[in-house]
Amino acid sequence: MPELRKDPITNRWVIIATDRARRPSDFLRESTPRTASGRFCPFCPGNEAKTPPEVLAFRNGSRSNEPGWSVRVFPNKFPVLGIEGDLDREGEGLFDRMQGIGAHEVIVETSDHLLAITDLPEKKIEQVLWAFRDRINDLKNDRRLRYVLLFKNHGEGAGATLEHTHSQLIALPVVPKRVQEEVDGARDYYDFKERCLFCDLIRQEAKAKERVVLETDRFIVVEPYASRFPFETWILPKHHRSHFEDTDSQHLENLAWVLRSTLRKIEKVLERPAYNFLIHSAPLQEPANAYFHWHIEVIPKLTRVAGFEWGTGFYINPTPPEESAQFLREAGLA
Amino acid sequence: MPELRKDPITNRWVIIATDRARRPSDFLRESTPRTASGRFCPFCPGNEAKTPPEVLAFRNGSRSNEPGWSVRVFPNKFPVLGIEGDLDREGEGLFDRMQGIGAHEVIVETSDHLLAITDLPEKKIEQVLWAFRDRINDLKNDRRLRYVLLFKNHGEGAGATLEHTHSQLIALPVVPKRVQEEVDGARDYYDFKERCLFCDLIRQEAKAKERVVLETDRFIVVEPYASRFPFETWILPKHHRSHFEDTDSQHLENLAWVLRSTLRKIEKVLERPAYNFLIHSAPLQEPANAYFHWHIEVIPKLTRVAGFEWGTGFYINPTPPEESAQFLREAGLA
Repeated sequence: MPELRKDPITNRWVIIATDRARRPSDFLRESTPRTASGRFCPFCPGNEAKTPPEVLAFRNGSRSNEPGWSVRVFPNKFPVLGIEGDLDREGEGLFDRMQGIGAHEVIVETSDHLLAITDLPEKKIEQVLWAFRDRINDLKNDRRLRYVLLFKNHGEGAGATLEHTHSQLIALPVVPKRVQEEVDGARDYYDFKERCLFCDLIRQEAKAKERVVLETDRFIVVEPYASRFPFETWILPKHHRSHFEDTDSQHLENLAWVLRSTLRKIEKVLERPAYNFLIHSAPLQEPANAYFHWHIEVIPKLTRVAGFEWGTGFYINPTPPEESAQFLREAGLA
Repeated sequence: MPELRKDPITNRWVIIATDRARRPSDFLRESTPRTASGRFCPFCPGNEAKTPPEVLAFRNGSRSNEPGWSVRVFPNKFPVLGIEGDLDREGEGLFDRMQGIGAHEVIVETSDHLLAITDLPEKKIEQVLWAFRDRINDLKNDRRLRYVLLFKNHGEGAGATLEHTHSQLIALPVVPKRVQEEVDGARDYYDFKERCLFCDLIRQEAKAKERVVLETDRFIVVEPYASRFPFETWILPKHHRSHFEDTDSQHLENLAWVLRSTLRKIEKVLERPAYNFLIHSAPLQEPANAYFHWHIEVIPKLTRVAGFEWGTGFYINPTPPEESAQFLREAGLA
């Protein structure tokens, strides 16, 4: 008998198919190739002039917008939002709109075209996380911006259009719907219990163990109880923090290992699938709070389409999180 | 400059790329083939024994579960929910679950394997709509069921696994998240204005005309102001009704023409794309109300992936609805 499970944060019900659970080998997959296509790459060293001027780079003494960097951040050449102008909020009868003010940046994670993020040494991944933090803290100074979305599309099936490994950042004058739902759900719980919902969830999962993928002193990686997608994976800091950008260097150092290990396990079990990962953090201009708890969500792209899920917000997950957790737990880290 | 627009029903903001708008020919497409693969088809006449026994069929005097039908409805052989048993709601610490009680049925829209729904005469499509209505009214008697989702996946890219044209029905003991959001949003508006939000929207769109695809005395077809997807299309009845199943025969007759015309326009402009359509109706066991307004949402599957949209509920739409409406308006009906 399948099961209906409710996500305690957003109160969304999900169907979990517990009977004929789909195993890793059952999924349609297109492995993400590691070989280079040979096409011109605007993200490679030497081609810095082909991108807008950088806003951040970690360099060994070389000059801006020249080779010699290990992580490089610049505005997207084809941004979905523009940084210049005013919001100009206006109504039109029932409808509301504003100018598309915001930022859209690219974080190139390594100068080496052939490497995936999982191939990088921990220190290099830590640099990428530092770049995320630095960019958020810089954009926070622009009071028009309410949220910074940090995400990675890995593989064509997950929306990556260039093969050189990179993440993206979109800074918005609004809070995205699902993030707002999480914030509201967490606040409701806090008002009722006077405890952080995520902290409670971490304690319960660490005790139950069945949905835990890996755990360190500072982080826990779990398959959420009401996962919407097979092998959906969350990385949560054990120490309560509402904002990602308030993470200290010891946590960032450990996160580099945890993130790489999690992605390597997913690559191993699912044969290098396309995936998205996203950072969920409290809204940018709000002070640190006791009820929201930042985390990373990793969503491998395994099922061919979301089908009617788009139109209903109702998800059918063919793999119970207890089973996907076991596959990932048992996979080595190499 | 791109624009941020807010959906007045759910308050979701969407980025609409107004500058370099993508035209129909810019989308990656796999046209849905009309030729038969030659594989065995359990939905074809003569193979009735290969499906579970029918729960409804429109027949010319022939016997149940034998050929001679024009529309045939039966439980899905591999249902995502089961009808037998109790809900057995239970908690597990933070988490809530219940048994996967519900129904999952298939509506085969024609006995002819080679036809698409857009090839059917109006009278046949009207029969399909009657079957939708009859099945909802029957399932309504089961007080455990709170919602019936009626949807169609057309084409492999939209999740169809069998080529013989059919729709599906999933009856749930919960209301899907996005539908609940719409119901809540519409109720808030009604509490504030004492008018139906959808009725107001229909009046405004009919007057402005720029997002209207087609209009009859009884229905209006529009590209919503804050469309999440390119060529997202809504079909709304002009006469206020909260529940689809309360639609009368004159409206169903007109809806057959409107639905077919809308889908034909989409097929013409976008070269037979895969698509989903879904009926949004008020929750099953609730009495008729003045604030919710049933409608059909059609979502062509044009963009390769939803990318990070899944994880954020934040959508970027590369085609303004005013432009997609114009393309659809100008396309003929043949």
